[in-house]
Amino acid sequence: DGGIGMLQALGFGFWNRDGKQAAFGAKGLEGLVRITDDTVLPELAECRFRIACDVSNVLCGPQGCSAVYGPQKGADAAMVEQMDGWMESYALLAKQKYAAADPRKEGTGAAGGLGFAFLTFLNGVLEPGIGIVLDETGMEQHIRNADMVITGEGRLDGQTAMGKAPAGVARLAKKYEKPVIALAGSLAKEASNCNREGIDAFFSILPGAVSLDEAMNPQNAKANLADTAEQVFRLWNTSLHYSREQ
Amino acid sequence: DGGIGMLQALGFGFWNRDGKQAAFGAKGLEGLVRITDDTVLPELAECRFRIACDVSNVLCGPQGCSAVYGPQKGADAAMVEQMDGWMESYALLAKQKYAAADPRKEGTGAAGGLGFAFLTFLNGVLEPGIGIVLDETGMEQHIRNADMVITGEGRLDGQTAMGKAPAGVARLAKKYEKPVIALAGSLAKEASNCNREGIDAFFSILPGAVSLDEAMNPQNAKANLADTAEQVFRLWNTSLHYSREQ
Repeated sequence: DGGIGMLQALGFGFWNRDGKQAAFGAKGLEGLVRITDDTVLPELAECRFRIACDVSNVLCGPQGCSAVYGPQKGADAAMVEQMDGWMESYALLAKQKYAAADPRKEGTGAAGGLGFAFLTFLNGVLEPGIGIVLDETGMEQHIRNADMVITGEGRLDGQTAMGKAPAGVARLAKKYEKPVIALAGSLAKEASNCNREGIDAFFSILPGAVSLDEAMNPQNAKANLADTAEQVFRLWNTSLHYSREQ
Repeated sequence: DGGIGMLQALGFGFWNRDGKQAAFGAKGLEGLVRITDDTVLPELAECRFRIACDVSNVLCGPQGCSAVYGPQKGADAAMVEQMDGWMESYALLAKQKYAAADPRKEGTGAAGGLGFAFLTFLNGVLEPGIGIVLDETGMEQHIRNADMVITGEGRLDGQTAMGKAPAGVARLAKKYEKPVIALAGSLAKEASNCNREGIDAFFSILPGAVSLDEAMNPQNAKANLADTAEQVFRLWNTSLHYSREQ
């Protein structure tokens, strides 16, 4: 819905041809004629928004949110074209009031246009999610005091190496020259790229040929994590033991 | 067949009520009346047999080869009882000629009675298979010269710790204080006993939730082994690297 549902909740007005506030959902974008901000929550003036955003899609067009995410959520070609047209008009209307509105900016298409809404109406900044998580959890301080860093993911793959959480954790750990081990439910072939991103070694926790259901059962996953971690530390200690002997 | 097929091939005679040599298979044991050794291969007198034997079953009775292995191979209760009776008579006949024949000795029931045949007719000795393999491959010499010992098995389980190949390899490796890593297709919960038997750490090579067929495909297994071994050595080297820095 281009983020207008959120904006309405914060006091913005999105008015259509019939003189009514836009309805919920993408359909609410149809026939918008006016945007108002006279009833906006006053506290917003004191707020700064850091938005966790890991996608670079724009608001409209072939790389826009309607074309890229619409079909995943059940939209057919005709619906995608229609929604994309509504987004286009919404962006034009927004630009009349907020000069900085830019539907071609990376990330504006995130979450059905919420990216556009935060950038245009709330002066937000879009940041990779992992940076925000690392800041907010005080991860750097934890890592600085650690002997070893263990990270992980459901599936370690080529995307992991391209900035997802384990790679972000590894980058921070390497700043303090800490060893980094990743444990994962499964490993794609391209997981090997993770070694270049600072993950010194990674292991799958699966103990045998199992179904995805068995693998994802929380109790199994917990036991498998513990068992694999035990063997990782056994190997680590064995290496230390033999290096001391020499 | 109590090993009589092998013994016939070596020149022993097993004669039945009809004055004919016994037929192949367990049925050949029925109605044996005489054993002869006048046409035995003369070279046998110079041979010593070390028999690789990892089972302790006896020849006859409830722990005999008919009762324990017959059903696995399709014999019903009546057939098992009949075969067991034939084995009993065969053992009695053998004892008349060879005083040392002992169907209650551990291992006589191995491989359908081949154990009994080797012990009784060929003066063989039964040994755990791993000992023979380690001797014949010159493993001790290899291990003495190695920095690290890698062993493995299709499935690492409680049996592994009780004397199967990886445990035998580990025992020999520990004599020379070498680190031992095991890689396996799958890990049973009781694989943890392997740590007590000298396997310093073990890992499953499976990268994700796969079927048994995919796991056992030789190309997949080879790639999975190589990938896991790479990460094991990365972890090992990381540990060495950090221990040197401290």
